[in-house]
Amino acid sequence: MQSQYATLLQKFEEHLQSWQQSLPHKPESLYKPQQYILGIGGKRIRPLMVLVACDLFSAHIEKAIPSAIGIELFHNFSLMHDDIMDKAPLRRGKETVHTRWNENIALLSGDAMLVKAYEAICNSDKDLIQSLLKIFNRTALEVCEGQQYDMDFEKQSQVTKESYLEMIRCKTAVLLGCALEMGALCGGANEKAQKELYAFGVEIGIVFQLMDDLLDAYGNEKVGKQIGGDILANKKTILFVEAINRADADQKKKLLELYQDNELDSSQKINSVLAIFNDLNIKAIVEKNCHDLTRDAEKHLKNCGADFKKINALFDFFMTLLQREN
Amino acid sequence: MQSQYATLLQKFEEHLQSWQQSLPHKPESLYKPQQYILGIGGKRIRPLMVLVACDLFSAHIEKAIPSAIGIELFHNFSLMHDDIMDKAPLRRGKETVHTRWNENIALLSGDAMLVKAYEAICNSDKDLIQSLLKIFNRTALEVCEGQQYDMDFEKQSQVTKESYLEMIRCKTAVLLGCALEMGALCGGANEKAQKELYAFGVEIGIVFQLMDDLLDAYGNEKVGKQIGGDILANKKTILFVEAINRADADQKKKLLELYQDNELDSSQKINSVLAIFNDLNIKAIVEKNCHDLTRDAEKHLKNCGADFKKINALFDFFMTLLQREN
Repeated sequence: MQSQYATLLQKFEEHLQSWQQSLPHKPESLYKPQQYILGIGGKRIRPLMVLVACDLFSAHIEKAIPSAIGIELFHNFSLMHDDIMDKAPLRRGKETVHTRWNENIALLSGDAMLVKAYEAICNSDKDLIQSLLKIFNRTALEVCEGQQYDMDFEKQSQVTKESYLEMIRCKTAVLLGCALEMGALCGGANEKAQKELYAFGVEIGIVFQLMDDLLDAYGNEKVGKQIGGDILANKKTILFVEAINRADADQKKKLLELYQDNELDSSQKINSVLAIFNDLNIKAIVEKNCHDLTRDAEKHLKNCGADFKKINALFDFFMTLLQREN
Repeated sequence: MQSQYATLLQKFEEHLQSWQQSLPHKPESLYKPQQYILGIGGKRIRPLMVLVACDLFSAHIEKAIPSAIGIELFHNFSLMHDDIMDKAPLRRGKETVHTRWNENIALLSGDAMLVKAYEAICNSDKDLIQSLLKIFNRTALEVCEGQQYDMDFEKQSQVTKESYLEMIRCKTAVLLGCALEMGALCGGANEKAQKELYAFGVEIGIVFQLMDDLLDAYGNEKVGKQIGGDILANKKTILFVEAINRADADQKKKLLELYQDNELDSSQKINSVLAIFNDLNIKAIVEKNCHDLTRDAEKHLKNCGADFKKINALFDFFMTLLQREN
């Protein structure tokens, strides 16, 4: 990581620690899960982006600290609740909150964490609060909508590309855009600059999710992660959606059958699905999607009016992140 | 209800209807439960109190409408999530959201409803938002704490009077105080007046809960409600707490045994517990608690500096409510 980003990240971690130290101890079941989920890691990309965006326009990054804390709390609140809904046993390799405690505790701690996110943002400069919350409220609702669409998709046998992209835009990408937009606002950027950074964040956020879908099917030898998890879970990823769009009648029938068959041997199921993906050249098609989105995102970033050196550093940062993960 | 209050309530209902009409239709599972829970009634006491408190100090009650909407949305969000945690099948005689849909939908709709509560409050005058949210955030956290204490108490065989009162203060009373405080703030009241109204609301809120505990054990012939539900559920109400405090060794042993016995015939259990309550004169003791709290609440109200006629109308309103319920 660029050394300047490392400094910003360290500042954030210091403030987050103060925040954690200021949390009440009682009732324990309400506050300990919040400490726990913040303690099991995460890359803090979103709060870092709040600070980086502020730093594009101002030397006073302390103005963006409340938003950075708020965004990170919101992100962890949403993970806590999503994990309940998805019945996920693990998060970042550790027990999820509802597994370690129980569902009621994860539900209520999550609620309190969402309130704490708002409380954090309300520590911003008084004249920024209304504008910050306007962005944050809109985003928080979209994140809920994205999670609902994701759950709805589980019950559908097919999903259009348009609705899949809209789901991941809401569920994961808008929060990155929101982080950048709020940071820019705290840094005193004008509305156009805020909007360009938002658009950049959303598009890069979508690319991250598409690359994640790719990674799950095609893996990364360096990381050595087991591949095919999404296929076994019958998840309608971009690969599935693009494949259905391009499949002939036979391929489509076979693919839909495979995605309803939970009896089939795991590696046989994965290999059969991958064979269809490969016949349809899906990997290259999704990579092309990612490439186009990234170019478009870059344009938005370059239009934000900040110093070119800083803009390039920000773009490089994301390119490095993407390459490291893929 | 006094005709002036009826007018305020009608204004609120009109604004709530506009709010409901402005809700998106999709995703349906996210927004329909919000419409549903708002549609199954409730007396709207809290939003009414926002408007009444504003009206104590100002003719511009429209300034308090965003807070009134926000408070009612928050209240319904908390009911939606509490019903999941309590596994309650019914609310106001109708199916709860998680029963009608499912737990995930109730969880996520509740989250979105909490965000919508903040969004509503953010529609207030810009220079009020930070102060309004400071009150609201503090209260929202206390409501979560109260619910957590309530769940914790279920696992304890005994609860002190102090911690019981603290639990009901957080779980139900502070929201009434918050409604009055926010309303007063919107009406331009000074800080002392806001605090006096808050204290009034909290104390009256506690009285409501204590009367509710009494009602469950001693009933109301007019209402004809079945009595003893709390006893059958082994709920540590104020009656139980006061009884444990005053019981001799034998009575205490018997009471604790009865509260762990789920095999006993219902009416036998209720009658045995009530016999101990009666021996210890618990009904009169709790009524005395309520009386003292009400007198104290009245003092706070009278210190708020508003017009005496309006103050008396507000006090009478709550006295009528309390008498009607008991």
